[in-house]
Amino acid sequence: MFKLYYAPHTCSLASHIALEDADASYQLERIDFRKTEQQSAAYLEVNPKGRVPAMATPRGILTETPAMLAFIAQSFPAAGLAQLSDPFAFAELQSFNSYLCSTLHVAHAHRMRGHRWADDPASFADMQRKVPKSVGACYDMIETRMLKGPWVMGSTYTIADPYLFTLAQWLEEDGVDPARIPKVMDHRARMAARPNVKKAIAEELAA
Amino acid sequence: MFKLYYAPHTCSLASHIALEDADASYQLERIDFRKTEQQSAAYLEVNPKGRVPAMATPRGILTETPAMLAFIAQSFPAAGLAQLSDPFAFAELQSFNSYLCSTLHVAHAHRMRGHRWADDPASFADMQRKVPKSVGACYDMIETRMLKGPWVMGSTYTIADPYLFTLAQWLEEDGVDPARIPKVMDHRARMAARPNVKKAIAEELAA
Repeated sequence: MFKLYYAPHTCSLASHIALEDADASYQLERIDFRKTEQQSAAYLEVNPKGRVPAMATPRGILTETPAMLAFIAQSFPAAGLAQLSDPFAFAELQSFNSYLCSTLHVAHAHRMRGHRWADDPASFADMQRKVPKSVGACYDMIETRMLKGPWVMGSTYTIADPYLFTLAQWLEEDGVDPARIPKVMDHRARMAARPNVKKAIAEELAA
Repeated sequence: MFKLYYAPHTCSLASHIALEDADASYQLERIDFRKTEQQSAAYLEVNPKGRVPAMATPRGILTETPAMLAFIAQSFPAAGLAQLSDPFAFAELQSFNSYLCSTLHVAHAHRMRGHRWADDPASFADMQRKVPKSVGACYDMIETRMLKGPWVMGSTYTIADPYLFTLAQWLEEDGVDPARIPKVMDHRARMAARPNVKKAIAEELAA
Protein backbone atom coordinates (compact mmCIF):
# COMPACT_ATOMS: atom_id res chain seq x y z
CA MET A 1 0.00 0.00 0.00
CA PHE A 2 1.30 3.41 -1.02
CA LYS A 3 0.14 6.84 0.06
CA LEU A 4 0.38 9.64 -2.48
CA TYR A 5 0.62 13.18 -1.12
CA TYR A 6 -0.85 15.41 -3.80
CA ALA A 7 -2.40 18.76 -4.56
CA PRO A 8 -4.85 19.42 -7.38
CA HIS A 9 -3.48 21.21 -10.46
CA THR A 10 0.12 20.18 -9.71
CA CYS A 11 2.48 17.62 -11.24
CA SER A 12 1.40 15.04 -8.63
CA LEU A 13 -1.37 14.10 -11.09
CA ALA A 14 1.22 12.26 -13.20
CA SER A 15 2.04 9.79 -10.42
CA HIS A 16 -1.64 9.51 -9.52
CA ILE A 17 -2.54 8.44 -13.06
CA ALA A 18 0.42 6.05 -13.15
CA LEU A 19 -0.75 4.40 -9.91
CA GLU A 20 -4.15 3.89 -11.55
CA ASP A 21 -2.50 2.54 -14.70
CA ALA A 22 -0.48 0.12 -12.56
CA ASP A 23 -3.62 -1.02 -10.72
CA ALA A 24 -1.70 -0.27 -7.52
CA SER A 25 -3.22 -0.21 -4.06
CA TYR A 26 -2.87 3.35 -2.77
CA GLN A 27 -4.36 6.05 -0.59
CA LEU A 28 -4.48 9.74 -1.37
CA GLU A 29 -3.61 12.52 1.06
CA ARG A 30 -4.40 16.03 -0.09
CA ILE A 31 -1.98 18.82 0.80
CA ASP A 32 -3.91 22.10 0.84
CA PHE A 33 -1.82 24.76 -0.88
CA ARG A 34 -4.40 27.44 0.08
CA LYS A 35 -3.41 26.78 3.72
CA THR A 36 0.29 26.42 2.73
CA GLU A 37 0.18 22.89 4.15
CA GLN A 38 3.19 21.99 1.99
CA GLN A 39 5.25 24.09 4.42
CA SER A 40 3.62 22.73 7.61
CA ALA A 41 5.79 20.99 10.18
CA ALA A 42 3.83 17.77 9.67
CA TYR A 43 4.37 17.74 5.91
CA LEU A 44 8.01 18.79 6.12
CA GLU A 45 8.51 15.58 8.10
CA VAL A 46 7.22 13.71 5.03
CA ASN A 47 9.03 15.83 2.44
CA PRO A 48 11.55 18.36 3.72
CA LYS A 49 11.52 20.01 0.29
CA GLY A 50 8.00 21.29 1.03
CA ARG A 51 6.57 20.29 -2.31
CA VAL A 52 4.32 17.69 -3.86
CA PRO A 53 4.33 14.95 -4.89
CA ALA A 54 5.66 12.61 -2.24
CA MET A 55 4.81 8.95 -1.92
CA ALA A 56 4.99 6.86 1.22
CA THR A 57 5.94 3.24 0.59
CA PRO A 58 6.65 0.35 2.96
CA ARG A 59 10.37 1.12 2.50
CA GLY A 60 10.16 4.89 2.99
CA ILE A 61 9.23 8.13 1.28
CA LEU A 62 9.96 8.87 -2.38
CA THR A 63 9.95 12.27 -4.07
CA GLU A 64 10.68 13.67 -7.55
CA THR A 65 8.26 12.73 -10.29
CA PRO A 66 10.69 11.02 -12.72
CA ALA A 67 11.95 8.74 -9.93
CA MET A 68 8.43 7.98 -8.69
CA LEU A 69 7.15 7.17 -12.17
CA ALA A 70 10.04 4.79 -12.85
CA PHE A 71 9.47 3.21 -9.42
CA ILE A 72 5.78 2.63 -10.19
CA ALA A 73 6.68 1.08 -13.56
CA GLN A 74 9.32 -1.19 -11.98
CA SER A 75 7.10 -2.17 -9.04
CA PHE A 76 4.25 -3.26 -11.31
CA PRO A 77 6.00 -4.76 -14.34
CA ALA A 78 2.84 -6.53 -15.49
CA ALA A 79 1.29 -3.15 -16.27
CA GLY A 80 3.89 -2.62 -19.01
CA LEU A 81 4.43 1.07 -18.23
CA ALA A 82 8.09 1.08 -19.33
CA GLN A 83 10.40 -1.12 -21.41
CA LEU A 84 12.18 -2.40 -18.32
CA SER A 85 14.35 -5.03 -19.96
CA ASP A 86 15.83 -2.70 -22.59
CA PRO A 87 18.26 -0.16 -21.07
CA PHE A 88 18.31 2.03 -24.19
CA ALA A 89 14.52 2.23 -24.48
CA PHE A 90 14.29 2.87 -20.73
CA ALA A 91 16.90 5.63 -21.07
CA GLU A 92 14.96 7.31 -23.87
CA LEU A 93 11.88 7.25 -21.65
CA GLN A 94 13.83 8.64 -18.72
CA SER A 95 15.38 11.31 -20.92
CA PHE A 96 11.92 12.51 -21.92
CA ASN A 97 10.71 12.63 -18.32
CA SER A 98 13.90 14.38 -17.19
CA TYR A 99 13.36 17.05 -19.86
CA LEU A 100 9.82 17.62 -18.63
CA CYS A 101 11.04 17.93 -15.05
CA SER A 102 14.14 20.07 -15.48
CA THR A 103 13.29 22.18 -18.55
CA LEU A 104 9.54 22.36 -19.29
CA HIS A 105 8.28 22.39 -15.69
CA VAL A 106 11.08 24.80 -14.69
CA ALA A 107 10.18 27.20 -17.54
CA HIS A 108 6.53 27.05 -16.46
CA ALA A 109 7.43 27.71 -12.82
CA HIS A 110 8.78 31.13 -13.75
CA ARG A 111 5.19 32.33 -14.21
CA MET A 112 4.16 31.96 -10.57
CA ARG A 113 7.24 30.87 -8.62
CA GLY A 114 9.75 33.54 -9.61
CA HIS A 115 10.55 34.08 -5.93
CA ARG A 116 12.59 30.89 -6.04
CA TRP A 117 15.20 32.60 -8.21
CA ALA A 118 14.79 36.37 -7.72
CA ASP A 119 13.45 38.94 -5.27
CA ASP A 120 12.32 42.00 -7.22
CA PRO A 121 8.68 42.24 -8.44
CA ALA A 122 10.03 43.73 -11.66
CA SER A 123 12.00 40.51 -12.22
CA PHE A 124 8.88 38.42 -11.63
CA ALA A 125 7.02 40.46 -14.25
CA ASP A 126 9.92 40.05 -16.68
CA MET A 127 9.93 36.28 -16.07
CA GLN A 128 6.18 36.11 -16.62
CA ARG A 129 6.49 37.90 -19.94
CA LYS A 130 9.06 35.32 -21.10
CA VAL A 131 7.01 32.22 -20.18
CA PRO A 132 5.06 31.99 -23.48
CA LYS A 133 8.40 31.92 -25.33
CA SER A 134 10.35 29.61 -22.98
CA VAL A 135 7.51 27.15 -22.41
CA GLY A 136 6.54 27.44 -26.08
CA ALA A 137 10.07 26.46 -27.14
CA CYS A 138 9.80 23.31 -25.00
CA TYR A 139 6.50 22.35 -26.64
CA ASP A 140 7.96 23.01 -30.10
CA MET A 141 10.80 20.61 -29.23
CA ILE A 142 8.33 18.00 -27.95
CA GLU A 143 6.06 18.43 -30.98
CA THR A 144 8.78 18.23 -33.63
CA ARG A 145 11.50 16.04 -32.10
CA MET A 146 10.24 14.01 -29.15
CA LEU A 147 6.61 12.88 -29.30
CA LYS A 148 6.77 9.80 -31.51
CA GLY A 149 3.03 9.15 -31.62
CA PRO A 150 0.49 7.97 -30.95
CA TRP A 151 2.05 7.81 -27.47
CA VAL A 152 5.15 9.69 -26.38
CA MET A 153 7.47 6.75 -26.90
CA GLY A 154 5.66 5.39 -29.96
CA SER A 155 3.17 2.56 -30.19
CA THR A 156 3.25 1.71 -26.48
CA TYR A 157 1.75 3.78 -23.65
CA THR A 158 4.31 4.46 -20.90
CA ILE A 159 4.87 6.60 -17.79
CA ALA A 160 5.87 9.45 -20.13
CA ASP A 161 2.24 9.83 -21.21
CA PRO A 162 0.62 10.83 -17.91
CA TYR A 163 3.56 13.16 -17.23
CA LEU A 164 3.23 15.04 -20.53
CA PHE A 165 -0.56 15.12 -20.12
CA THR A 166 -0.21 16.61 -16.62
CA LEU A 167 2.09 19.44 -17.64
CA ALA A 168 0.07 20.07 -20.81
CA GLN A 169 -2.88 21.11 -18.59
CA TRP A 170 -1.10 24.43 -18.12
CA LEU A 171 -0.02 25.40 -21.60
CA GLU A 172 -2.86 27.81 -22.44
CA GLU A 173 -2.34 29.67 -19.15
CA ASP A 174 1.36 29.80 -20.00
CA GLY A 175 0.43 31.61 -23.22
CA VAL A 176 1.34 28.82 -25.65
CA ASP A 177 -0.75 28.72 -28.83
CA PRO A 178 -2.31 25.22 -29.08
CA ALA A 179 -2.56 25.57 -32.86
CA ARG A 180 1.25 25.36 -33.02
CA ILE A 181 1.40 21.92 -31.41
CA PRO A 182 -1.28 19.67 -32.94
CA LYS A 183 0.40 16.40 -31.90
CA VAL A 184 0.63 17.52 -28.27
CA MET A 185 -3.01 18.63 -28.31
CA ASP A 186 -4.16 15.36 -29.89
CA HIS A 187 -2.19 13.45 -27.23
CA ARG A 188 -3.79 15.53 -24.49
CA ALA A 189 -7.28 14.87 -25.84
CA ARG A 190 -6.70 11.10 -26.08
CA MET A 191 -5.29 11.04 -22.56
CA ALA A 192 -8.24 13.03 -21.19
CA ALA A 193 -10.61 10.40 -22.61
CA ARG A 194 -8.97 7.49 -20.74
CA PRO A 195 -11.00 6.18 -17.81
CA ASN A 196 -7.99 6.11 -15.44
CA VAL A 197 -7.26 9.75 -16.20
CA LYS A 198 -10.87 10.77 -15.67
CA LYS A 199 -10.96 8.85 -12.37
CA ALA A 200 -7.72 10.41 -11.08
CA ILE A 201 -8.82 13.95 -11.93
CA ALA A 202 -12.28 13.41 -10.42
CA GLU A 203 -10.72 12.08 -7.18
CA GLU A 204 -8.44 15.10 -6.88
CA LEU A 205 -11.20 17.63 -7.48
CA ALA A 206 -13.74 15.89 -5.24
CA ALA A 207 -11.60 15.77 -2.09
CA MET B 1 31.47 2.02 -28.35
CA PHE B 2 29.94 5.26 -27.15
CA LYS B 3 30.83 8.83 -28.02
CA LEU B 4 30.37 11.46 -25.33
CA TYR B 5 29.87 15.04 -26.47
CA TYR B 6 31.17 17.21 -23.65
CA ALA B 7 32.46 20.62 -22.70
CA PRO B 8 34.86 21.31 -19.84
CA HIS B 9 33.35 22.79 -16.67
CA THR B 10 29.85 21.53 -17.50
CA CYS B 11 27.70 18.72 -16.12
CA SER B 12 28.95 16.40 -18.88
CA LEU B 13 31.79 15.54 -16.47
CA ALA B 14 29.36 13.36 -14.47
CA SER B 15 28.72 11.01 -17.39
CA HIS B 16 32.42 11.07 -18.31
CA ILE B 17 33.41 9.86 -14.83
CA ALA B 18 30.63 7.25 -14.89
CA LEU B 19 31.93 5.89 -18.22
CA GLU B 20 35.36 5.54 -16.60
CA ASP B 21 33.84 3.89 -13.53
CA ALA B 22 31.99 1.45 -15.81
CA ASP B 23 35.20 0.67 -17.71
CA ALA B 24 33.22 1.46 -20.87
CA SER B 25 34.73 1.83 -24.31
CA TYR B 26 34.09 5.42 -25.39
CA GLN B 27 35.37 8.34 -27.41
CA LEU B 28 35.21 11.99 -26.42
CA GLU B 29 34.13 14.83 -28.66
CA ARG B 30 34.63 18.30 -27.32
CA ILE B 31 32.02 20.96 -28.06
CA ASP B 32 33.68 24.37 -27.91
CA PHE B 33 31.41 26.77 -26.05
CA ARG B 34 33.78 29.67 -26.86
CA LYS B 35 32.83 29.14 -30.52
CA THR B 36 29.16 28.45 -29.57
CA GLU B 37 29.54 25.04 -31.18
CA GLN B 38 26.62 23.77 -29.09
CA GLN B 39 24.40 25.85 -31.39
CA SER B 40 26.12 24.82 -34.64
CA ALA B 41 24.09 23.07 -37.32
CA ALA B 42 26.28 19.98 -36.99
CA TYR B 43 25.77 19.69 -33.23
CA LEU B 44 22.05 20.47 -33.39
CA GLU B 45 21.80 17.34 -35.56
CA VAL B 46 23.24 15.41 -32.61
CA ASN B 47 21.28 17.24 -29.89
CA PRO B 48 18.56 19.64 -31.04
CA LYS B 49 18.47 21.09 -27.51
CA GLY B 50 21.88 22.67 -28.17
CA ARG B 51 23.37 21.59 -24.88
CA VAL B 52 25.83 19.07 -23.49
CA PRO B 53 26.05 16.27 -22.62
CA ALA B 54 24.88 14.02 -25.39
CA MET B 55 26.01 10.46 -25.93
CA ALA B 56 25.98 8.55 -29.19
CA THR B 57 25.31 4.84 -28.77
CA PRO B 58 24.85 2.04 -31.31
CA ARG B 59 21.08 2.49 -30.82
CA GLY B 60 20.99 6.28 -31.09
CA ILE B 61 21.66 9.49 -29.18
CA LEU B 62 20.88 9.97 -25.50
CA THR B 63 20.63 13.26 -23.61
CA GLU B 64 19.80 14.37 -20.05
CA THR B 65 22.30 13.47 -17.37
CA PRO B 66 20.02 11.44 -15.05
CA ALA B 67 18.92 9.24 -17.96
CA MET B 68 22.49 8.83 -19.25
CA LEU B 69 23.84 7.91 -15.81
CA ALA B 70 21.15 5.28 -15.28
CA PHE B 71 21.82 3.95 -18.78
CA ILE B 72 25.54 3.61 -18.05
CA ALA B 73 24.77 1.80 -14.78
CA GLN B 74 22.33 -0.57 -16.49
CA SER B 75 24.61 -1.19 -19.48
CA PHE B 76 27.54 -2.21 -17.27
CA PRO B 77 25.92 -4.01 -14.34
CA ALA B 78 29.21 -5.59 -13.28
CA ALA B 79 30.48 -2.15 -12.29
CA GLY B 80 27.85 -1.98 -9.54
CA LEU B 81 27.05 1.68 -10.13
CA ALA B 82 23.39 1.35 -9.03
CA GLN B 83 21.25 -1.12 -7.08
CA LEU B 84 19.59 -2.35 -10.23
CA SER B 85 17.61 -5.23 -8.76
CA ASP B 86 15.96 -3.17 -6.00
CA PRO B 87 13.33 -0.75 -7.37
CA PHE B 88 13.12 1.25 -4.13
CA ALA B 89 16.89 1.74 -3.84
CA PHE B 90 17.06 2.59 -7.53
CA ALA B 91 14.24 5.12 -7.04
CA GLU B 92 16.07 6.79 -4.14
CA LEU B 93 19.14 7.09 -6.34
CA GLN B 94 17.09 8.48 -9.20
CA SER B 95 15.34 10.90 -6.85
CA PHE B 96 18.70 12.30 -5.77
CA ASN B 97 19.87 12.71 -9.36
CA SER B 98 16.55 14.27 -10.38
CA TYR B 99 16.89 16.83 -7.56
CA LEU B 100 20.39 17.73 -8.75
CA CYS B 101 19.14 18.15 -12.32
CA SER B 102 15.88 20.03 -11.76
CA THR B 103 16.57 22.02 -8.57
CA LEU B 104 20.31 22.43 -7.82
CA HIS B 105 21.55 22.77 -11.41
CA VAL B 106 18.58 25.02 -12.26
CA ALA B 107 19.28 27.31 -9.29
CA HIS B 108 22.95 27.49 -10.35
CA ALA B 109 21.99 28.30 -13.95
CA HIS B 110 20.38 31.55 -12.83
CA ARG B 111 23.86 32.97 -12.30
CA MET B 112 24.90 32.89 -15.96
CA ARG B 113 21.92 31.67 -17.97
CA GLY B 114 19.21 34.10 -16.84
CA HIS B 115 18.38 34.80 -20.47
CA ARG B 116 16.59 31.47 -20.56
CA TRP B 117 13.85 32.85 -18.31
CA ALA B 118 13.98 36.65 -18.56
CA ASP B 119 15.11 39.45 -20.87
CA ASP B 120 16.01 42.47 -18.75
CA PRO B 121 19.62 42.92 -17.51
CA ALA B 122 18.16 44.12 -14.20
CA SER B 123 16.45 40.73 -13.84
CA PHE B 124 19.72 38.92 -14.55
CA ALA B 125 21.43 40.95 -11.80
CA ASP B 126 18.56 40.16 -9.41
CA MET B 127 18.84 36.46 -10.22
CA GLN B 128 22.60 36.54 -9.69
CA ARG B 129 22.15 38.09 -6.26
CA LYS B 130 19.80 35.27 -5.26
CA VAL B 131 22.08 32.39 -6.36
CA PRO B 132 24.02 32.12 -3.08
CA LYS B 133 20.72 31.69 -1.23
CA SER B 134 18.95 29.38 -3.72
CA VAL B 135 21.97 27.18 -4.42
CA GLY B 136 22.92 27.31 -0.74
CA ALA B 137 19.48 26.02 0.25
CA CYS B 138 19.99 23.03 -2.07
CA TYR B 139 23.36 22.24 -0.48
CA ASP B 140 21.85 22.58 3.01
CA MET B 141 19.22 20.02 2.00
CA ILE B 142 21.86 17.68 0.56
CA GLU B 143 24.11 18.11 3.61
CA THR B 144 21.42 17.55 6.24
CA ARG B 145 18.85 15.24 4.59
CA MET B 146 20.28 13.50 1.55
CA LEU B 147 23.98 12.64 1.60
CA LYS B 148 24.06 9.44 3.65
CA GLY B 149 27.84 9.07 3.73
CA PRO B 150 30.45 8.13 3.01
CA TRP B 151 28.90 8.04 -0.48
CA VAL B 152 25.68 9.76 -1.47
CA MET B 153 23.58 6.61 -1.13
CA GLY B 154 25.52 5.23 1.85
CA SER B 155 28.21 2.60 1.91
CA THR B 156 28.17 1.95 -1.85
CA TYR B 157 29.52 4.28 -4.54
CA THR B 158 26.90 4.93 -7.24
CA ILE B 159 26.17 7.18 -10.22
CA ALA B 160 24.95 9.82 -7.73
CA ASP B 161 28.55 10.41 -6.63
CA PRO B 162 30.07 11.72 -9.86
CA TYR B 163 26.96 13.84 -10.40
CA LEU B 164 27.16 15.55 -7.01
CA PHE B 165 30.93 15.96 -7.39
CA THR B 166 30.47 17.60 -10.80
CA LEU B 167 27.94 20.19 -9.63
CA ALA B 168 29.92 20.79 -6.42
CA GLN B 169 32.77 22.17 -8.55
CA TRP B 170 30.75 25.37 -8.85
CA LEU B 171 29.61 26.06 -5.31
CA GLU B 172 32.25 28.62 -4.34
CA GLU B 173 31.60 30.63 -7.51
CA ASP B 174 27.90 30.43 -6.66
CA GLY B 175 28.68 32.12 -3.34
CA VAL B 176 28.00 29.13 -1.09
CA ASP B 177 30.10 29.00 2.09
CA PRO B 178 31.93 25.63 2.13
CA ALA B 179 32.14 25.76 5.92
CA ARG B 180 28.37 25.26 6.06
CA ILE B 181 28.49 21.92 4.26
CA PRO B 182 31.34 19.79 5.64
CA LYS B 183 29.91 16.46 4.42
CA VAL B 184 29.57 17.78 0.87
CA MET B 185 33.12 19.15 0.99
CA ASP B 186 34.53 15.90 2.37
CA HIS B 187 32.71 13.99 -0.39
CA ARG B 188 34.13 16.36 -3.01
CA ALA B 189 37.68 15.89 -1.70
CA ARG B 190 37.39 12.08 -1.69
CA MET B 191 35.97 12.11 -5.20
CA ALA B 192 38.75 14.40 -6.43
CA ALA B 193 41.32 11.89 -5.19
CA ARG B 194 39.91 8.97 -7.20
CA PRO B 195 42.03 7.99 -10.22
CA ASN B 196 39.02 7.82 -12.58
CA VAL B 197 38.01 11.36 -11.62
CA LYS B 198 41.54 12.68 -12.09
CA LYS B 199 41.75 10.96 -15.46
CA ALA B 200 38.41 12.35 -16.68
CA ILE B 201 39.25 15.91 -15.63
CA ALA B 202 42.72 15.72 -17.16
CA GLU B 203 41.25 14.46 -20.47
CA GLU B 204 38.76 17.31 -20.60
CA LEU B 205 41.31 20.01 -19.85
CA ALA B 206 43.99 18.58 -22.18
CA ALA B 207 41.87 18.48 -25.31
